[in-house]
Amino acid sequence: MVDHAPEAASAQPYEIVSEHAELGFNQYGKAENRLVHVRRDGDVHHLTDVNVTSQLRGDFTHVHTHGDNAHCVATDSQKNTVYSLARDGVGAPEEFALRLADHFTRSYDWVNGGRWEVEQYSWDRIVTENGPHDHSFVRGGKEVRRTVVQRDGEATFVVSGVTDLTVLKSSGSAFVGFVDDTYRTLADATDRIMATDVTAWWSYDPDHVSGVDFDATYDSVRQIILSQFAELHSLALQQTLWAMAVRVIETHEEVTEIRFSCPNNHHFTVDLSPFGQDNPNVVFFAADRPYGKIEASVTRKGVPSEPRAWNTVPAFA
Amino acid sequence: MVDHAPEAASAQPYEIVSEHAELGFNQYGKAENRLVHVRRDGDVHHLTDVNVTSQLRGDFTHVHTHGDNAHCVATDSQKNTVYSLARDGVGAPEEFALRLADHFTRSYDWVNGGRWEVEQYSWDRIVTENGPHDHSFVRGGKEVRRTVVQRDGEATFVVSGVTDLTVLKSSGSAFVGFVDDTYRTLADATDRIMATDVTAWWSYDPDHVSGVDFDATYDSVRQIILSQFAELHSLALQQTLWAMAVRVIETHEEVTEIRFSCPNNHHFTVDLSPFGQDNPNVVFFAADRPYGKIEASVTRKGVPSEPRAWNTVPAFA
Amino acid sequence: MVDHAPEAASAQPYEIVSEHAELGFNQYGKAENRLVHVRRDGDVHHLTDVNVTSQLRGDFTHVHTHGDNAHCVATDSQKNTVYSLARDGVGAPEEFALRLADHFTRSYDWVNGGRWEVEQYSWDRIVTENGPHDHSFVRGGKEVRRTVVQRDGEATFVVSGVTDLTVLKSSGSAFVGFVDDTYRTLADATDRIMATDVTAWWSYDPDHVSGVDFDATYDSVRQIILSQFAELHSLALQQTLWAMAVRVIETHEEVTEIRFSCPNNHHFTVDLSPFGQDNPNVVFFAADRPYGKIEASVTRKGVPSEPRAWNTVPAFA
Amino acid sequence: MVDHAPEAASAQPYEIVSEHAELGFNQYGKAENRLVHVRRDGDVHHLTDVNVTSQLRGDFTHVHTHGDNAHCVATDSQKNTVYSLARDGVGAPEEFALRLADHFTRSYDWVNGGRWEVEQYSWDRIVTENGPHDHSFVRGGKEVRRTVVQRDGEATFVVSGVTDLTVLKSSGSAFVGFVDDTYRTLADATDRIMATDVTAWWSYDPDHVSGVDFDATYDSVRQIILSQFAELHSLALQQTLWAMAVRVIETHEEVTEIRFSCPNNHHFTVDLSPFGQDNPNVVFFAADRPYGKIEASVTRKGVPSEPRAWNTVPAFA
Repeated sequence: MVDHAPEAASAQPYEIVSEHAELGFNQYGKAENRLVHVRRDGDVHHLTDVNVTSQLRGDFTHVHTHGDNAHCVATDSQKNTVYSLARDGVGAPEEFALRLADHFTRSYDWVNGGRWEVEQYSWDRIVTENGPHDHSFVRGGKEVRRTVVQRDGEATFVVSGVTDLTVLKSSGSAFVGFVDDTYRTLADATDRIMATDVTAWWSYDPDHVSGVDFDATYDSVRQIILSQFAELHSLALQQTLWAMAVRVIETHEEVTEIRFSCPNNHHFTVDLSPFGQDNPNVVFFAADRPYGKIEASVTRKGVPSEPRAWNTVPAFA
Repeated sequence: MVDHAPEAASAQPYEIVSEHAELGFNQYGKAENRLVHVRRDGDVHHLTDVNVTSQLRGDFTHVHTHGDNAHCVATDSQKNTVYSLARDGVGAPEEFALRLADHFTRSYDWVNGGRWEVEQYSWDRIVTENGPHDHSFVRGGKEVRRTVVQRDGEATFVVSGVTDLTVLKSSGSAFVGFVDDTYRTLADATDRIMATDVTAWWSYDPDHVSGVDFDATYDSVRQIILSQFAELHSLALQQTLWAMAVRVIETHEEVTEIRFSCPNNHHFTVDLSPFGQDNPNVVFFAADRPYGKIEASVTRKGVPSEPRAWNTVPAFA
Repeated sequence: MVDHAPEAASAQPYEIVSEHAELGFNQYGKAENRLVHVRRDGDVHHLTDVNVTSQLRGDFTHVHTHGDNAHCVATDSQKNTVYSLARDGVGAPEEFALRLADHFTRSYDWVNGGRWEVEQYSWDRIVTENGPHDHSFVRGGKEVRRTVVQRDGEATFVVSGVTDLTVLKSSGSAFVGFVDDTYRTLADATDRIMATDVTAWWSYDPDHVSGVDFDATYDSVRQIILSQFAELHSLALQQTLWAMAVRVIETHEEVTEIRFSCPNNHHFTVDLSPFGQDNPNVVFFAADRPYGKIEASVTRKGVPSEPRAWNTVPAFA
Repeated sequence: MVDHAPEAASAQPYEIVSEHAELGFNQYGKAENRLVHVRRDGDVHHLTDVNVTSQLRGDFTHVHTHGDNAHCVATDSQKNTVYSLARDGVGAPEEFALRLADHFTRSYDWVNGGRWEVEQYSWDRIVTENGPHDHSFVRGGKEVRRTVVQRDGEATFVVSGVTDLTVLKSSGSAFVGFVDDTYRTLADATDRIMATDVTAWWSYDPDHVSGVDFDATYDSVRQIILSQFAELHSLALQQTLWAMAVRVIETHEEVTEIRFSCPNNHHFTVDLSPFGQDNPNVVFFAADRPYGKIEASVTRKGVPSEPRAWNTVPAFA
């Protein structure tokens, strides 16, 4: 049984011993450090708006078992480091996360890895009658650019993504020929609205992380997703995801795998016949729950999926 | 005391009598009917994505006091009506709300008013290498266009607005010279980030609702807000709101009043000196709570604010 | 037209003049100051967890029109005041808001009113095998106790409420006999689930604010709401609200008016007949949107509703 | 390159071929089926309120690569199945998920696995002056009971948890002796508020799933978490999690591993000295972001963590 010191005891570390339990995977740090950086290019300002989470891995056993903080780099100190390292600019989210990984693993002997996540929010320059403004901005779309960088000893894994990229097509989507049994009540649809909030994450080849232009790849993957969504006549949301994935894999050698987790945001044609009206696919009810949930990974042939890259990426769940 | 029939009783209306209580203002209906309309212009589709709330006012006393539903137009029926009236198009949110107002007050003798609220979400056409797509769309910014239309007998009140229009300027904002007493710990700031999520609502002159181009006014007011935010050297967020309001009132004769409710989304300069670094307004912490909350109404001179237009508009709260 | 100094100008106040616009109602302050107070009763701790918003009203015209902050009690200073006044305890939310009202209106000549809102979150003492713990707590239900106190010169208005008090009854609710016309497709229901998230706000008699035991009234009103919801055989949600209101008005002389804004959280009986099953009101789909929205005010006979108490209370919208 | 049929083409399946891409892990289904079940025990009703997600795995390659839905059990059909299987009761969330697993893998040859997630919301019986009510309920705490059941061929994995179990202790927590370097600005704290929203997930021994009383284990684990939080004098949140885990592992033979993901919800002592006041740990500011994030897994000695149980459980991310 657990036997612990009474609360009144002095705050000296001591071991909480267990015959049956042992500490497994663990990581800790400071989450959601909201950081805005302003870069001045003469009078013209450039804005970087990110949300940074830093978590360390290594020899932290005694923090858990003994309450001994000798190895504990406080989460507050991790926060300080995030802001300090941003002093001269953030760069691409992936680059900033990699700098954090380097910093922490080099600074503390017992830190041999960690996880750094960055979300980035987009801003557009406000345009007035005098043109684009030097230092005034309006938030862009609701989509969020993201990255999860993990360091494991000498190995580094970069998985980047986009979430909440909401798209809808009002034609060019069908869903027919699915299993017809007792539990089917849905009719075939030869022309339906297809809508989803794309969550896509893709892993970078660990051997080629250093030379990647992460901004360019992000822009390109995002555009491939939009173009394929628009132009493919879809027979199933699964097929659309496959088409997106194939083109990403074929276009971007630096990408080893891409995963999608996409709701099917149902838009139901409203039955107007009780009111003496037809409804030739013009009036729809946009439903909330339940929703379809379609998830798929597509890998580069011959390159197995790397669990250490993906095990803490919020997808497939 | 309340005296009511046991649950086992038959469902016959009966009066719950009170010597001391009387029914006051009331309204009821169906909220958040999510409606998507697709208009086909040849192969080119046009999307209208709205969220419609319908609430009726009139003689509904016996629904409350007796549980007698003879006058009750079911909220489900109001929902049906929303979808039915959208069969041939929605138009501007204000126009759709006005059509609902006309329909309900004309259809039921005992309905003499009501409240219809419409939110509209923006979509952009997806652009591929083949140009703008005919029927595929991506969600635009997170801001929401809104309207609250109220009918009270013969009178009609239209108040329209925008919410979640998030803006930030990285220079051109100061805050100095405020009250200096025991409770002040904030230093003067001659150059700070100013950021807010604009909520603005404006009322239309009830005598000139019929001729208004609501889409054009919306676009213009939104642009005035952005331009004033960008171009005014701000001495206080209050001053910025005043400048926006003045220009709206002076530009749009059809607008009688405009109200703002704006957080001051604080961006604090991070103290990097413990790490041997300066911070010449480049690294900021974007805070969540608490936040400033600045609210102001600006009216057209000589035109008093109309409570019946504003009393259920979600502002100043 | 607005004519303003260029951004490069020095930060001297100047007037933004308008021939057509004038400043109306305005208030400003610091919103959502998250405050936790710990009171020590020997070893036994008592927790008060609140969210406080402070907004001032008075002569703040020049802040808007001139950017002159001489009268501006910074929102940061208001925040400081909130924490300072909590030093020796918070008390009931209403009492704390009243103390803030007194403080601000007494401290600054040009402040003649304001609005103070307090939300309170409930915590239960953790119970272990050793009994209720002295200083360890678990969050209670999701409902929130709230108050909005407004000061207008010599007058003080207290409106208190509860939000997100979620209730459901699986029997004892019917909805029959409503309007049967073209737009009705809903069948009569003699036994349905009724569920709602109660939002209730009640105003205190301004002449009797000083002697009220706000905690006792809160507990009593909450219990009346629950009991009436449970025990009334409901013919309409409107009737249930009326029954709650009547009993509150009759029980609490200090309450002059009570308002409800309640969704009808629909639970639809699922049609299991395609699967060869009946469904005698046992399996339900809990829908999100749309939902019914039922709003009603009940006043004490002979006491007119007081707009200054209610105009910034978030109800009916 | 991707080569696809024009949208105008008939909806015949065809292959989107890729030389470089191959389909990896995939699953699909219907998410968040909101299901309420009412069980009648004479006049006394019992409520089960759950949110069910069903996702299938198996041979669905052609749905992706060809848009061929012959194997596709529509997400709508999965929804129907969820409601149909609930006809005679839900039971423990784990039991319901296991029944869904059995049903789907037995009904379709090509379905060899899947993922079923159930969230459960708690309701308390409303108590009136007449005692606990037969069929009227009020929502309990905001915590959510959850389970993720995965089937992989013959193997079945059950991981259950609790999320949003919010706790706070106002004494009995210290944080001292952590790394002191350039990036440390935080002082030692010998007596601080410790608060967190516990997310805990635990896996059941796959060999002993059939005999488990899941309700009893849930109640016991939850109580252990609360008791350990309350009674351990904490030297670090990590230590508290370890103590909770040890006692769960030692008490529950059926549990093979437990994982925690817990924010450190910071409560900062407010500096009241500018206002001439001390603050002996009585007034705190409850911060939102950033927050500490402490994550740890504790396994039973000799039982390795099972990736197939954990790979889609939303923890450590």
